[in-house]
Amino acid sequence: MRVKKSPSIKDVARLAGISAGCVSKYLCKKPYVSKNTRKKIEQSILQLNYKPNLVARSLVSKKTNKIGLIVFDIKNPYQTEILSGIEEYIYQKNLNYRTLFVDMSIGEETGDKYIDSLLEDRVDGILSTSDKLSRVCLSYLQDINIPIIFIGRYPDHSDMDINFVTVDNYMGAYLLIRYLMDQGHRNIGYISGPLDTLVTQNRLKGYKAALSDSGIDIREENIIIEKEFNPESGKEGAKKLFLLKNKPSAIFCSNDFAAYGVIDFCYKKNLKIPEDVSIAGFDDIGFSSMDFVNLTTVRQPIKEMVAIATGELIKKIEGKDINITINKVLTPEIIIRESTAPGKKSIC
Amino acid sequence: MRVKKSPSIKDVARLAGISAGCVSKYLCKKPYVSKNTRKKIEQSILQLNYKPNLVARSLVSKKTNKIGLIVFDIKNPYQTEILSGIEEYIYQKNLNYRTLFVDMSIGEETGDKYIDSLLEDRVDGILSTSDKLSRVCLSYLQDINIPIIFIGRYPDHSDMDINFVTVDNYMGAYLLIRYLMDQGHRNIGYISGPLDTLVTQNRLKGYKAALSDSGIDIREENIIIEKEFNPESGKEGAKKLFLLKNKPSAIFCSNDFAAYGVIDFCYKKNLKIPEDVSIAGFDDIGFSSMDFVNLTTVRQPIKEMVAIATGELIKKIEGKDINITINKVLTPEIIIRESTAPGKKSIC
Repeated sequence: MRVKKSPSIKDVARLAGISAGCVSKYLCKKPYVSKNTRKKIEQSILQLNYKPNLVARSLVSKKTNKIGLIVFDIKNPYQTEILSGIEEYIYQKNLNYRTLFVDMSIGEETGDKYIDSLLEDRVDGILSTSDKLSRVCLSYLQDINIPIIFIGRYPDHSDMDINFVTVDNYMGAYLLIRYLMDQGHRNIGYISGPLDTLVTQNRLKGYKAALSDSGIDIREENIIIEKEFNPESGKEGAKKLFLLKNKPSAIFCSNDFAAYGVIDFCYKKNLKIPEDVSIAGFDDIGFSSMDFVNLTTVRQPIKEMVAIATGELIKKIEGKDINITINKVLTPEIIIRESTAPGKKSIC
Repeated sequence: MRVKKSPSIKDVARLAGISAGCVSKYLCKKPYVSKNTRKKIEQSILQLNYKPNLVARSLVSKKTNKIGLIVFDIKNPYQTEILSGIEEYIYQKNLNYRTLFVDMSIGEETGDKYIDSLLEDRVDGILSTSDKLSRVCLSYLQDINIPIIFIGRYPDHSDMDINFVTVDNYMGAYLLIRYLMDQGHRNIGYISGPLDTLVTQNRLKGYKAALSDSGIDIREENIIIEKEFNPESGKEGAKKLFLLKNKPSAIFCSNDFAAYGVIDFCYKKNLKIPEDVSIAGFDDIGFSSMDFVNLTTVRQPIKEMVAIATGELIKKIEGKDINITINKVLTPEIIIRESTAPGKKSIC
């Protein structure tokens, strides 16, 4: 019987019409393989059914004990809390790892460029709060055995094995809206960040479901989708909601940072919180618990999320649980503070 | 005439009793030269009057286009603004540099360890907001031609050429206190972060000078030195000031972040701002201009500081102005908002 020889790097290179060195470079987590070349290599790998993993593993055997961190916007305090949470976890557990950080908020580029930059610095694994990473980029990371775990946001590539630790965003929004309805609110505005991420999509679903389940009609005019997740977008959203004929008695923001903008808007317009309008957010970042902010919100268990994600990433880096996909959805908690109160309708 | 030969790496190695390779490693910005060995090399270099700069320069000729950023605490929004300011400057100027960031707030170690880690990643230069770097570490950076520029804080090594871009902290505090006195305040509390940095020392001097110049006695009980620069330390400081027999009519905090803690304390104690007490900070971080915070403060020209520091660092990296020491002290600006008002004494 003639045994079919497994395809080698040389076969891949021949088919792609490029040098074997370039294929090695691709497999060996080195950046600066052009998009075009990368595409050719990937097509050849697919065509030949070449299994690069073992080769790549041996090529990339030199551990550096560096973890790459990608955050989507360092100016968002939720991101800073995750970042310093990871550093603290590594320090407290006395783990022999250090971190390299990149901020995706500058420029218009996708995350792929940042992955290249982290790979150039030979990180052993990556934690990302951004979901803006392409399929090609993620499958490249898989091929070269660099584990990546997403925290909070994660890409919507249902055909791929994506590792993530997140919170139940649907449930968080659902419970918060149920709480507001229990307080007598029926006309509840919602200010959301862009719907290009599962996180915001699920929070919006939770908002709608909570209303529907109580037999309340969803008013599309009450749902404002903003371009950002910051105080400016909160202000803009509040402005739009207060221009409505039927002004909402409560406003739910898809994150705390934007809710601060709503508070600011109310302050400027002499609207009393919670007497004139109730305000709630999502995240429970540090500032929200200060007495002069005192924001009702959905708490994300940031410490727990960070601990699981970092712990699991290190396991994978060290060769454990490589084939287990981490999909953890933690339970959020509703934190009731003074920015919400019974709605006027319930008083009447 | 017999010309005295300049000492070589070998001479240094011989005197230090170690290998020439190890001296090269030291000169070649490679980390993991033990403290002990480093000391021996430094003593030998000193004894022989060996000039490593040119050699080091050739050894380190391979540019990586990476800039290391050291921040003293990522949880402090002032730090985040500097960090993202640097990224934005690099992006807007279309500079071919990328950054590696380390946060010094985790653990008890000095900055030297972080320098090692940045050097391991072969950065071309360093920007630091922390002043906690030793003389040995800084002279090592000088020897291997890795420029470092400090932003805001800078080390108090008067015998060394330290590059820094900062704000006139003395003037900022002085002008703020003068403004409060113009408003009729005579009993002004001051909550400071630790006095282990020139920044806080100069702000305290400014506070004292403004009072003295107006013939007002400095009450030592009015000066509270806290261990941190965060809202918790602001709260603690406010608690101490309000326990005094003669409660201050105005409180000046050595940074905005701590001032938020003072606002919180007042809110909890039902003290009205500015009717019952005026509050002012230092920095003018984003949150302070929100209408529901509205903090009177001393504005640091963060964008300008960051632009000068980054621009000058890149010049040095690219071999320009290597021998010019950058010592820029920018002028602060007093931003008057609603957290301060005329003191009661002036009304009487």
